Amino acid sequence: MFKFHMPTKVIAGQGCVLENQGELILGKHALIVTGKSSGKKSGALDDVIFVLENNKIPYHVYDKVENNPEINDMALGGKFARECGCDFIIAIGGGSPLDASKAIAVYAANEPKENSGFELYDIFKGNYKNKPLPMVAIPTTAGTGSEVTPYSILTLHNEKTKKSFTCVDSFFKTAFLDGRYTLNLPLQVARNTAVDAMCHLIEGYTNKKASPSSDYMVLEGLKIIGKNLDKLENGNFDTDSCTELLWASTLGGIVISQTGTTIVHSMGYQLTYFKDIPHGMANGYLLCEYLKRADKVRVANCLDALGLSSLDKLLAYLEKILPRVADFTENELVEWSNISIKARNVASCPYPVTQDLEIEIYKNSLL
Amino acid sequence: MFKFHMPTKVIAGQGCVLENQGELILGKHALIVTGKSSGKKSGALDDVIFVLENNKIPYHVYDKVENNPEINDMALGGKFARECGCDFIIAIGGGSPLDASKAIAVYAANEPKENSGFELYDIFKGNYKNKPLPMVAIPTTAGTGSEVTPYSILTLHNEKTKKSFTCVDSFFKTAFLDGRYTLNLPLQVARNTAVDAMCHLIEGYTNKKASPSSDYMVLEGLKIIGKNLDKLENGNFDTDSCTELLWASTLGGIVISQTGTTIVHSMGYQLTYFKDIPHGMANGYLLCEYLKRADKVRVANCLDALGLSSLDKLLAYLEKILPRVADFTENELVEWSNISIKARNVASCPYPVTQDLEIEIYKNSLL
Repeated sequence: MFKFHMPTKVIAGQGCVLENQGELILGKHALIVTGKSSGKKSGALDDVIFVLENNKIPYHVYDKVENNPEINDMALGGKFARECGCDFIIAIGGGSPLDASKAIAVYAANEPKENSGFELYDIFKGNYKNKPLPMVAIPTTAGTGSEVTPYSILTLHNEKTKKSFTCVDSFFKTAFLDGRYTLNLPLQVARNTAVDAMCHLIEGYTNKKASPSSDYMVLEGLKIIGKNLDKLENGNFDTDSCTELLWASTLGGIVISQTGTTIVHSMGYQLTYFKDIPHGMANGYLLCEYLKRADKVRVANCLDALGLSSLDKLLAYLEKILPRVADFTENELVEWSNISIKARNVASCPYPVTQDLEIEIYKNSLL
Repeated sequence: MFKFHMPTKVIAGQGCVLENQGELILGKHALIVTGKSSGKKSGALDDVIFVLENNKIPYHVYDKVENNPEINDMALGGKFARECGCDFIIAIGGGSPLDASKAIAVYAANEPKENSGFELYDIFKGNYKNKPLPMVAIPTTAGTGSEVTPYSILTLHNEKTKKSFTCVDSFFKTAFLDGRYTLNLPLQVARNTAVDAMCHLIEGYTNKKASPSSDYMVLEGLKIIGKNLDKLENGNFDTDSCTELLWASTLGGIVISQTGTTIVHSMGYQLTYFKDIPHGMANGYLLCEYLKRADKVRVANCLDALGLSSLDKLLAYLEKILPRVADFTENELVEWSNISIKARNVASCPYPVTQDLEIEIYKNSLL
């Protein structure tokens, strides 16, 4: 038995926001959710504001989304949307603003209150009453895949980790992929996010839930990334290669919408939470050690699609493009494994995962 | 610029209807739309009725869908749905019942009346007011792809051809693919419908609207069909290969939802309208002559995915599995080209299409 579901419409190519204005406008008053700088620097915010003004649609901007959005801030975003009278959301940015939008859309339509039946943390139970605001997404990094997933990854200080809520109402209505918006990313950000996309694809393919509806997408996505390995090393991007990488990232998002991720992601969250290591970089540190234990044929298919002849070659490539930005102690790794072993996606791993194995993977990857 | 949109959820595998009962039930009173025999013979109707009775959902059956559904009958189906108080549709069958359901869903929610603003033929303009009834699909042939397209192909006696209406409301909510329902198809029906799927894939790949969001799906679908060429010749199917072929057919449907078809389809319609040649068989007669004029690299990629070494090999294979069931005269072919040259998808063809060229393709294929 396998399933496939991805209701988001994808529109890809240079100028896609300006050329598909009607698809951007889902209501009468827009909330633009974006990071402090990604919306402006990418050029996407200018295009969106041009379209809204051109169509006489009032809007408010909520640009208080930090990296790795924290759940209280999302509730504030929802309050802001309610107070401004916004009835749809345009999310612009990397994974954080996109994921944040999904939570803000829920909180905007459902005010969290103590003893009201819907409190702040109830978002993870999905027991809100009103439909979240409808949303469109404009990614400004090529990695998250959030534009086509029902997942929103939020930071929880009380659990010292990141945790996702998932609901079918959290699919964006439309995702706009324009390589112009990622062309001027700092090279290290482009690398980290591409590695995140690579991990989504590979984790989807080596996952217990891998199926005929996702496997061929993985290999297509990895071929696109493989074609661009040199550009990711050297930074010589053009708009076309950036749109290609956005499409590969979207394929990764479609894949994990079907399969979920693996321990690469759940173990990586601690590196981000405790050491502020960018999400894709954290995954990249752990990927090869995870793959050493996975099905040999499946690993070989991934490497083949990437155009790499061995797992060592992938490791060497990742070490080259992902510098070490923090030191780790054995104690930290043991402590983190206490958290990561509780993650849901441990069960999706293709081999049995114990806490000892997680410690071993952490150590071999990081010490 | 390219787009991708396919909101239907696909659930595939043996027993998928019984194991996903909640996904089958979209309302309080079901209209089951099916052909005279396909629902019963496939076993799908029994499974659906079991689920409805198990969940205490009343239902009515509309089994008056002929092959190549005629528009007046669809309006009668809509009237029947209104009179019975049905609020959702379960479509079971090949392309005809599935396509019929999309029209019945519109007519059920919008009564066509003269001078009312919505008359019978207005369905092609899409100017109905109320949302069509929600629908799920259970294909009992592996070819149409209708379970994942927004297209409904109806027969128009006044225009002596088939014509499609398209609207985003015509996507099924869920499609259930179970190889048990196609396992006992007559071999020639299995062949005709598989060739229809093959045509969808190849026409999508050689189409002007081919794009990165459809090309890789085409090659995946053709690989699956290629793996089953022997079974399609000899009829030695099992449930797994039948589910595989259903998935290939669904991929074909997803592809033409993005790209549309080509003149293979629009020229084939006349063979069906005037000579009652099954739809897939009609397309199969014309495919290779169309491909002789298409991009050589693209044709080679298709053949490679099918595991065939040349276009002649594909022609020989199609001639083997698709017998000639009618004779044609030159006059007929010229007359048909008068109709087919007016089809919208002429513009999607990868090379300029004149009426003379269509006559030449008809002649070389059929005389």
